[in-house]
Amino acid sequence: MGELKLLRAFRKGAPQHPWLRVGPGSDCAVLEWNSGRDVVYKIDQVVEGTHFLLKGSGAATPREVGWKAMAKACSDLAAAGAWPVAATVAVNLRKGTPERVAMELYRGITACCRKYKFALAGGDFATSPQGMSVVVSLLGECPKGKAWTRSGAKPGDFLVVTGPLGGSRAKKHLTFQPRLEVARELRRLLDHEVHACIDITDGLSRDLHHLCEESRIGAALLEDAIPYSATAKRSKSPLKHALRDGEDFELLLAISEEGAKRLARRWKHERGELWPIGRVARAKEGTTLVRSNGVRERLSDVGYEHQ
Amino acid sequence: MGELKLLRAFRKGAPQHPWLRVGPGSDCAVLEWNSGRDVVYKIDQVVEGTHFLLKGSGAATPREVGWKAMAKACSDLAAAGAWPVAATVAVNLRKGTPERVAMELYRGITACCRKYKFALAGGDFATSPQGMSVVVSLLGECPKGKAWTRSGAKPGDFLVVTGPLGGSRAKKHLTFQPRLEVARELRRLLDHEVHACIDITDGLSRDLHHLCEESRIGAALLEDAIPYSATAKRSKSPLKHALRDGEDFELLLAISEEGAKRLARRWKHERGELWPIGRVARAKEGTTLVRSNGVRERLSDVGYEHQ
Repeated sequence: MGELKLLRAFRKGAPQHPWLRVGPGSDCAVLEWNSGRDVVYKIDQVVEGTHFLLKGSGAATPREVGWKAMAKACSDLAAAGAWPVAATVAVNLRKGTPERVAMELYRGITACCRKYKFALAGGDFATSPQGMSVVVSLLGECPKGKAWTRSGAKPGDFLVVTGPLGGSRAKKHLTFQPRLEVARELRRLLDHEVHACIDITDGLSRDLHHLCEESRIGAALLEDAIPYSATAKRSKSPLKHALRDGEDFELLLAISEEGAKRLARRWKHERGELWPIGRVARAKEGTTLVRSNGVRERLSDVGYEHQ
Repeated sequence: MGELKLLRAFRKGAPQHPWLRVGPGSDCAVLEWNSGRDVVYKIDQVVEGTHFLLKGSGAATPREVGWKAMAKACSDLAAAGAWPVAATVAVNLRKGTPERVAMELYRGITACCRKYKFALAGGDFATSPQGMSVVVSLLGECPKGKAWTRSGAKPGDFLVVTGPLGGSRAKKHLTFQPRLEVARELRRLLDHEVHACIDITDGLSRDLHHLCEESRIGAALLEDAIPYSATAKRSKSPLKHALRDGEDFELLLAISEEGAKRLARRWKHERGELWPIGRVARAKEGTTLVRSNGVRERLSDVGYEHQ
């Protein structure tokens, strides 16, 4: 199983963070928190058969599984406008899993920590007759009282996405970059002009509905403004894929008109592309899609439905 | 499955904490941390077939599984001299698990949160063809720079345990009280006189060896001073059970002689009983057991071995 080798790698080579005082190998990790920052806290899991396959078409490598588990939790922190500080992981491996697989999984996990410069502060490993699962708990920081949430979007806000949508399950869901850097730049440029944010995991349509419910608003998307991924473009119905597929791990933001104007003047593309795709409306106006031909249609909770 | 009912209970009735600003139902939890306190951070898991059984002799109720998952992580925080603030959980249920079972599991988890007054700040639920597993991530607080660890024990320190040992697997491992309150009282009375601490999960002998390794010390236990649980007492070899069984979830502390004297004067039994069971020695003296007849024997890493 190589559990010992894994534990040794974990104790000796785990990614660090300046706030981490006690790390892997102790009963608990200890962090000295910066007093001006809130603690942003997330748990997430990927389970074999549900979030990834290890065999057959579309199978993930163990390294991709590790990356996805960590990047998925990072995506939630990005949606809060937070930056990760330290993670812990609980890994469950099928009995008899080769050492090579465990080490590859570990490398995928730590690759994400290193890329965004946060610590792997602790972990727990178990083996069972069951499939592989990886649970990630992630601690991040953001300025006091300023975490972005799903509530707070206001009528007139611009709806903005951070990347093309649809078709993620072909490959992107295993290799995506969580939008931490874009979120950090938006916070720096706009601060309180970001009224609400969510990461797109259930598909644009459903996650927009989540945002609308929590903010008690409506919304109007413009069909022509929605960016399609290359995979979605190659399909028969790019719009449907962009609205429904899910696991895009792009951010959907509601930004004040003032903020959107500032962005238009000052945003540089090398920070990551941004697409305005619609506006926030009042709750009674509902959630709608304005088609290319100008016709306005209701956007259902599960995605676009032609009426 | 009742996942919706579970999520509703989770969002509406989850235990709270004054530092929790954003709780269940959001992408992330947000906490405003007290600036004088460090963050103590732990992940732990219980897996069906490894840490509990749901069928047959010794089977756990779903409520006991929830309690154990949370109390096990609390025990690690107690060993750091920390107090829990907020937990998140990732639950994996076998497909087709009845709603009643999921709700009972949830009640076991929250019973522990309520007892020690910390928040359930977030969670993730998945179903799979596999058995049940519960991963708990726990955040606690302690005074800056003062978390207890396994290192720091010094020759001459008293070794103290917080409860009788052995035979936990008969039942106690499912229903134990994590020693948070005792740890808090010890911190209040002694503060820096606690040099090191570990919670006994692998058995007194092995966990004492962990303490010795991390503190680079030796130790001498007194057979006559080791408290046996009622279950261990009924067995043929109470000593062997106390040394080897594990999952006692009592604390093993190294306390300065000065601190131990203060304890003897000021400790009240209603705070929980304490048993001095030996002394810390120099590393070169090794880890030994002084038998009732005065003979000194080597204490092996896996427990007591008659020589």
